Amino acid sequence: MTDLRKTVERFWAAAEARDWDTFAGTLAEDVVYTLPQTRERISGRERYVQFNREYPGDWHLQIERMVAEPGQVVTWLRFTVGLEEMYGISFFTGTERIGSITDFWPEPYEPPTGRDHLTERY
Amino acid sequence: MTDLRKTVERFWAAAEARDWDTFAGTLAEDVVYTLPQTRERISGRERYVQFNREYPGDWHLQIERMVAEPGQVVTWLRFTVGLEEMYGISFFTGTERIGSITDFWPEPYEPPTGRDHLTERY
Repeated sequence: MTDLRKTVERFWAAAEARDWDTFAGTLAEDVVYTLPQTRERISGRERYVQFNREYPGDWHLQIERMVAEPGQVVTWLRFTVGLEEMYGISFFTGTERIGSITDFWPEPYEPPTGRDHLTERY
Repeated sequence: MTDLRKTVERFWAAAEARDWDTFAGTLAEDVVYTLPQTRERISGRERYVQFNREYPGDWHLQIERMVAEPGQVVTWLRFTVGLEEMYGISFFTGTERIGSITDFWPEPYEPPTGRDHLTERY
C-alpha cells in the first residue's frame, strides 16, 4: 500500500534474521525510538541498531496484524523469548525510511472483579 | 480516508460524551471485544455497551494517534482516570460498523539494567 509498509516488513524480517545491515538500511540516520512505559528514548541509527543487537534472549517475532497508511504504520507482534510469549505494538512514522518508532509492551494481568456477568475467559 | 475511520472517530467521541445511543450505533450487532492481557472476551453489542456504560471512574480520553486503512483502524489513546494517566491501544476491524475491537493497556515499568549507555529518560 505504501513504501513505509514495505520498509516495516523488511525491518521486522531483518530483526528476526539478525541481519543488522539490512535492519540499519530501513532506518533514517536520525531515527528516534521511544518507550513510553519506561520513559526511555534512543536517538540515532547507530545506537538503535546496537540496542537491538544487544537485546538479550533468544527472541523471535511474528507479525500478528499490520495497519498502514501513507507515512504511518502500526504492527502488533507476537514476541516469544523461550517459553514466554508477549505482545509488542509499534507505531512507525517515516517516508521511505523509518523516522520514529514508539513501542508498547503490554503485560498479562488479572481482570478486575464485577464484570464477569459480561465477559468470558478464553 | 475510509468509512471505518470516521466510525471509530464517532465511537470515541460518543464514549467521551457518554452518548450510549450514538456509541451503540457505531457497532455491528455481533461485535466482539477482546482483551488479550486478561484473556477476556465480550460478545454482542448490548453487552459491550453495558460494559462501557458500567466502567467505573471519571475516565476521559483523547486520541493521540490513529492509523487507518480500508477495513482496519488502530487508535492510541491517552486515557485519564482522575490523576492517573494510561495508554490504550485499540485495533478495530469492520466495514461501516465496527465488527471487532482488540484492546491493549500497557502499564509503566522500570527499565532493565544494562542499557543506559544507549538510552536517555524523559
